[in-house]
Amino acid sequence: MPNNIFYTLQKSSYLDEKLQAYANSDCYPFHMPGHKRSAKLELPNPYSMDITEIEGFDNLHHAEGILKEAQMRAAETFGAKSTFYLVNGSTCGILSAISAALPRKGTLLLSRNSHKSAYHAVFLRELETIYLLPSFTEFGISGSIPPAHVEQALQEFPQIGCVFLTSPTYDGVVSDIQAIAGIAHAHNVPLIVDEAHGAHFMFSKKFPSPALRCGADVAIQSLHKTLPCLTQAALLHVNSKRVDTDALKRFLSIYQTSSPSYLLMASIDKCIRFLREESTARMTEFTQLLENFYRKAESLRRLKVFTPSSCPPESCFAHDFSKILVSVGKTGLTGKELYDSLLKTYHLQMEMSSGHYVTALTSLMDTKEGLKRLSAALEDIDHKNRPMEYGEPEHLLTAELIYQAPKPAMSISMAMDQHTETLPLKASTGHISQEYVYLYPPGIPLVAPGEVLTGKLLRTISQCQGMGLSVEGPSDMAGRNIRVVKM
Amino acid sequence: MPNNIFYTLQKSSYLDEKLQAYANSDCYPFHMPGHKRSAKLELPNPYSMDITEIEGFDNLHHAEGILKEAQMRAAETFGAKSTFYLVNGSTCGILSAISAALPRKGTLLLSRNSHKSAYHAVFLRELETIYLLPSFTEFGISGSIPPAHVEQALQEFPQIGCVFLTSPTYDGVVSDIQAIAGIAHAHNVPLIVDEAHGAHFMFSKKFPSPALRCGADVAIQSLHKTLPCLTQAALLHVNSKRVDTDALKRFLSIYQTSSPSYLLMASIDKCIRFLREESTARMTEFTQLLENFYRKAESLRRLKVFTPSSCPPESCFAHDFSKILVSVGKTGLTGKELYDSLLKTYHLQMEMSSGHYVTALTSLMDTKEGLKRLSAALEDIDHKNRPMEYGEPEHLLTAELIYQAPKPAMSISMAMDQHTETLPLKASTGHISQEYVYLYPPGIPLVAPGEVLTGKLLRTISQCQGMGLSVEGPSDMAGRNIRVVKM
Repeated sequence: MPNNIFYTLQKSSYLDEKLQAYANSDCYPFHMPGHKRSAKLELPNPYSMDITEIEGFDNLHHAEGILKEAQMRAAETFGAKSTFYLVNGSTCGILSAISAALPRKGTLLLSRNSHKSAYHAVFLRELETIYLLPSFTEFGISGSIPPAHVEQALQEFPQIGCVFLTSPTYDGVVSDIQAIAGIAHAHNVPLIVDEAHGAHFMFSKKFPSPALRCGADVAIQSLHKTLPCLTQAALLHVNSKRVDTDALKRFLSIYQTSSPSYLLMASIDKCIRFLREESTARMTEFTQLLENFYRKAESLRRLKVFTPSSCPPESCFAHDFSKILVSVGKTGLTGKELYDSLLKTYHLQMEMSSGHYVTALTSLMDTKEGLKRLSAALEDIDHKNRPMEYGEPEHLLTAELIYQAPKPAMSISMAMDQHTETLPLKASTGHISQEYVYLYPPGIPLVAPGEVLTGKLLRTISQCQGMGLSVEGPSDMAGRNIRVVKM
Repeated sequence: MPNNIFYTLQKSSYLDEKLQAYANSDCYPFHMPGHKRSAKLELPNPYSMDITEIEGFDNLHHAEGILKEAQMRAAETFGAKSTFYLVNGSTCGILSAISAALPRKGTLLLSRNSHKSAYHAVFLRELETIYLLPSFTEFGISGSIPPAHVEQALQEFPQIGCVFLTSPTYDGVVSDIQAIAGIAHAHNVPLIVDEAHGAHFMFSKKFPSPALRCGADVAIQSLHKTLPCLTQAALLHVNSKRVDTDALKRFLSIYQTSSPSYLLMASIDKCIRFLREESTARMTEFTQLLENFYRKAESLRRLKVFTPSSCPPESCFAHDFSKILVSVGKTGLTGKELYDSLLKTYHLQMEMSSGHYVTALTSLMDTKEGLKRLSAALEDIDHKNRPMEYGEPEHLLTAELIYQAPKPAMSISMAMDQHTETLPLKASTGHISQEYVYLYPPGIPLVAPGEVLTGKLLRTISQCQGMGLSVEGPSDMAGRNIRVVKM
C-alpha cells in the first residue's frame, strides 16, 4: 500500500535507509537528477567500484590515459574542442571559468540572475561587476538577457573582460546566445555560459540550440540535472582560446578535490556512452511525450502551464519545454498547496514550488506512465469542485520593483572583508549590505554585498515579505535583520 | 584464472567497465579507499538512491532536518563540538578552514609539507606564509614538526594569525599536537590540523591520539582514506570558537557544489553507524593483524619495514602503523620494481611507490588473508636468490639539501598574478618562480611561487633529477623548463 510506504519514509532516521525507502516508494520523481532512478541504468554495489588513482586508472588532474580518452569522448559528443570532467558539480566549473577568464580585480559583465557560484567567483577573485538585468515576464520568472544590453554595457564599460550568463535558467528561459556571442567577440571578450540546466539541448532539435554551437567560448553543464548521470557530475567545455586552458586547468585543480570519485567519473562515462547509443531514439519518444503533455494541458480551465507563447518574444527568446511550469491559475491555491497536493494525493514529487507555480523537471528517462500520471493529476485538480473561481494571482511585482538598478558602494569582496554589524532591516536605510537578499522567483538578488540599502529597496523587500513571497538571505531566518558594513 | 582477468582489465576502454573488471579481479587493494571494496558493505544500485533536495531530505547548506541530525551523530562519534559533512573531499575542508581563520592577506604559519589545498587557500586569500620545516628522518620521509619551532615562529612573527599542519602525513608521521596546540593557544591563535589520513585514530588506543582530543581547534578528516566510506567523503570538525563558525559555513558553501551527492552523504551516515556498532571489535582484530604483520616483518633479511623505533624520537613523535612502508633495503630493487613485482606476481596493488620504498595502506576492513598475502609476498621477494646482496640505498639527500629555507621575494598570490615567461631551469638562476617544484618523497615543495630560484636550489633540483627521484612541477613534464615571473 503506497501510503504505508510513504509513512515509513517519514520515520527512518538514517540517511541511507531513508533514501532506500524513498526508492521503494511509489513516488514519481519530477525532480533532478535526470536519470530518474530508472532501472534501465545500473551499476553494482558502489563500494565495489570505488577506487583511487592506482595503476591503469589515470589521474583526473593530469589525465593521460583512460580519463583523457573519456574526456575526449565527452568533447566529441558535445562538439567541444576540449572537455573537462567535473566532480564538484557545475559550481566548480563556474568558479574555475570565471577565475581563469579574468585577472584578479578584473571586471565581469554578469547576468544578475546568475547562480551563487558566479557571485562566489567574484568574491574570491575580487572582481568588479557590471550587471545585465533579465527581461520581465508576465509569468513572474526572469526572462532572457537582451543582446542590446550586452552591446550597451560593453560600449559603456570598456574595462569589461568577460561576459557571463545563465541560459537556460532554472525555469528554462533561454537567451539569444548567438547574438550575444557575436557582440562579445566583436568587443574581443569571451562569453561563458552557465548551461547547467541545458546539457540535453545537444540531443534533439526540439530543444533550443546548445550554447557551444551558438558560439559560447566556455559552457558548463550539469550532467545530473537533465541527463542520466549521478548527482554532482558535470562537464566544462571549451571551444576557443579566449579563455586560457592552462589557467583553467590550474583553477579546476584548486576548486576540486584531489581525490575525485571514480564512481562519479564512471557514471559520466556511462552517461556519455548511453547518449551516443540511445539518445536519438529516446529523445524522439521523450519529446513526443512532452508534446502530448502540453497539448493536453491546453484544456486545463483553471491551472495554467507556461509556454513561451504567453510572453512577448523579446522577454523569452526560447524556452526549454522539458521544464514544466504549472501556475495555480484560477484555482485559488498557492504554489505550495499545489505542490503538497501533487505529492500527498498523487505521489508526484515536484522539483519545487514558488509563490504561484510548481516546476516539474523531465528528462529522456521519464516514462509515458509518469507523464500520464502528471496530466491526470493536473486534470483532477483542475476539475475539482470549488466554491468559486478565483482570479489569477496578480503579478504583484512590477519590473521596476524587482529589477531595480543596483547601487554599488564598493565591490562584493571589499564589502565582505569589512567589519560587520547586524541591524534590523527597518533601521538599515543608507547602510551597505554584507549579504545577498534573494527573491524566488525570479531567483535574483534584490541586493548583493557592497550595495546600498536604499529606502526604495527596503520597501520592496518588506512588500515582498508582506505578500508571503520567498525572500532569502537576511542573516536571521525570519528575515528581520541584515548584516551590514560597520560604519 | 587470475592472470586472464588481469589481462582483460588492461583492455577495457570504458571507465565503468574497467572498474567492474578490477572489482572482479583477484587483486588485493593495499590502497585507498579504506572500505577496501569489502562485500560487508553494501548499497544498492547507486542510481536508485541518488536524489536532490526534495521534501524530507533537508539541504546540506542549511541543514535543519535529517542532515543536521546526521552531522550531530558524526560530531558525537568523533568528539567534536560541531561537524560538517564534506562532499568535495578534505580539499574543500582545508580551503574553508584556512579561509575562515584568517582575513584576506593575513599570515599563516604553515608546515612546508602540507597538501596542495593549503597552498591553494594561501593563493586564493592572498595570505603571507611563514613555514615550519619538518624534521629530517633517515628513512627519507618528512618527520614531525618540532613544537619548539612553532613557539619560535610565533614569537618572531607576531602577525601570524593561524597555525596549520598535517598530522599524520601520507607516510603516517604524527606530530605532537598537544604541545603545539598549547603553544598556539598561548599565543591566542587557532590550530588547524589536516588529519585527512588519520580519521581512524579515534577508534583504537593503538593509534596515536586524534588531533581534536589533543586540543586542535579544527580538524579535517577524509573518511574514505582510512575508514569504510566512498571516495570524496570527508568531515570537518570544530572544537572551539577560535575559528568563526559562520565564516566557516560561508566558505563551505563557496567551495562545495550546490548539488551535493546524497549517495556520498548516505555513505558517510552509513560509515558513522558502522563505526558506532562495529569499530570496537573490528579494531581489536585489525590491530592484532597489524602487530602480527610487523612481528613477522622483523625476520626480513633484505627488505625493511619502517617503524618509528628506527628514528630518533624527536624526528618522529609517533607513527600510524596502519601505513606500512616497505623499503627495498638490500634487495637491489628500486621502489618501482618492488611495486611492480607485488602487483604483477602477487596481485597486490600498493598505494604508491617512491624511489626506495612502497606504501601499503591498511584499514579495519582488511582481511587476515590479505595481510597474510602481503607477508608471504614480502618473504618470497626477500628470500629470492639474487646474485649478490646490495648495500641499502644511500640517503642521497641530506636535510640541508631538501629543507633549504625558502627565499620568498613576494607572496604566492602576487607571484601567480604577474606576467609569465618560461625559461630552461638552467637559465633561471635569480628569477622568481611561478610554480611549485615538488620532491616525492618527502612530498615537500623545494620551491613555491614567489620564491627565488637560487643557484643552490637549482643544483639540488638537478641533483634530484639526476638520481632519478620524482621531481614534479616544472611546467614541462620532462622538468627542463620552469615558469617564472617575467622581469
